[in-house]
Amino acid sequence: MAARIIDGKAIAAQVRAEIAERVAASGITPGFVDLLIGDDPASEQYVGMKNKAAEAAGMAWFDRRLPADVDEATILLTIRDMNQDPLIHGILVQLPLPKECPADPFEVVAAIDPAKDVDGLNPMSQGLLAVGRPNFVPATPLGVVELLERSQIPVEGRHVVVIGRSLLLGRPLSILLSLKAPGLNATVTLCHTGTKDIGEHTRRADIIVAAAGSAGSVTADMVKPGAVVIDCGTNKLPGGRTVGDVDFDAVSEIAGAITPVPGGVGPMTVAMLMVNVARAAGV
Amino acid sequence: MAARIIDGKAIAAQVRAEIAERVAASGITPGFVDLLIGDDPASEQYVGMKNKAAEAAGMAWFDRRLPADVDEATILLTIRDMNQDPLIHGILVQLPLPKECPADPFEVVAAIDPAKDVDGLNPMSQGLLAVGRPNFVPATPLGVVELLERSQIPVEGRHVVVIGRSLLLGRPLSILLSLKAPGLNATVTLCHTGTKDIGEHTRRADIIVAAAGSAGSVTADMVKPGAVVIDCGTNKLPGGRTVGDVDFDAVSEIAGAITPVPGGVGPMTVAMLMVNVARAAGV
Repeated sequence: MAARIIDGKAIAAQVRAEIAERVAASGITPGFVDLLIGDDPASEQYVGMKNKAAEAAGMAWFDRRLPADVDEATILLTIRDMNQDPLIHGILVQLPLPKECPADPFEVVAAIDPAKDVDGLNPMSQGLLAVGRPNFVPATPLGVVELLERSQIPVEGRHVVVIGRSLLLGRPLSILLSLKAPGLNATVTLCHTGTKDIGEHTRRADIIVAAAGSAGSVTADMVKPGAVVIDCGTNKLPGGRTVGDVDFDAVSEIAGAITPVPGGVGPMTVAMLMVNVARAAGV
Repeated sequence: MAARIIDGKAIAAQVRAEIAERVAASGITPGFVDLLIGDDPASEQYVGMKNKAAEAAGMAWFDRRLPADVDEATILLTIRDMNQDPLIHGILVQLPLPKECPADPFEVVAAIDPAKDVDGLNPMSQGLLAVGRPNFVPATPLGVVELLERSQIPVEGRHVVVIGRSLLLGRPLSILLSLKAPGLNATVTLCHTGTKDIGEHTRRADIIVAAAGSAGSVTADMVKPGAVVIDCGTNKLPGGRTVGDVDFDAVSEIAGAITPVPGGVGPMTVAMLMVNVARAAGV
């Protein structure tokens, strides 16, 4: 039996429409900056996508750029400036930094005022999550939880296996899902490059979240029949096609529900960033 | 076959002796305060135990007490005062706060300068751990890792099931064990009160860490033959006897190695606190 396809594009559109409505009703104009360092075309494209989404939601975005070889001190000063700016409610730095940039991305992200850290990468944001008082959670893990919730897939009491422990996704998602809170409260196993046999864990999972960044690494034999499979991967194949971490064709024959790539988790990331910016502005 | 008994008392004594040696050699006198609010006899006893250990390690401790019904603002002022004091390298607040105290323990702990947060409960400390740059990790999880390491029990690539998600123990331990770092890098499943069948997870574990605070909750049928069982529980039975979370007699027949209660994890907590205070003083 073919799995139910979770339509991330439709759910993201719904989330974005709701945010636009709330912003319009609030009389507030949330403002944000996605600081672009250098001119990598892919990074430019991501920044443009977020700015367009902000515009559509009735938010203001500010164009801030620094040259690729800018030193750390200048970046920190720029961020401190934005921390003080009352028109800017949310600040993120487009990552990865270009190769020419000598700055430590950890220090850069740590310089953002936790009250404006809409990317949730600041150690204070991650700590508030770990102590069960989340303020800003990175957009992709938030998107995964929102996708499940809006697809009426319960998480509480279920066994979730998260593959990948990145700061942006796997780590905060594993913490978020296991918080003692309604709609969360899952039992989570966090697998990663140090895990001997990932399939041994995923075969027992009610929900699998693939976030390893490795095309085709979740195969049908790793999935329990009826399990929910959330694919966070976006891997460019040599031919140019984008695929996830999951062998979609085979796994969708076994899973109960599955997200496609593209059109699954991807669109949720921008939508949940808008949720975070609205939150930062008190909307 | 009976399990190897891991002697936490001996290992803790070794750690404490090493710290005393390092302190003596450094010419620095690490100083710390365990702020006592109210006069609960058990809390007094814990504070006294830590102060005694500090003294034995060549450290200075300072007696700071506040009445049980002290308001939050006064506690925060007291902490800010200690944050500024160059003789005090480490600050902790004896928890739980007494019932009469109206302060929010989260705000109290968050007021401690992260550079002096030797209990590791500050959200910044927990966040630095979550982003893989731990500074101060709570003493009990540190003690569990130290016990395993000094008992030559490898953690890397093994499946660890942690039972309990407290801020002081289960949550930071689950993060610590799964960091990408030599000697850690385990695959961790975090079980808790929301887990449907804890035994289903523990039966597959190479290492079980019981930190639920529930006497006898880990039974022999939940343990894979040869597994390592670390018991963090300290439960007072009605008769006055202290037992762990593990049914020691039965489980020690099946496990490969096991910590007793008392004399296992308990002594490590004070030892690792001393490690943290020394670290705070730059020793």
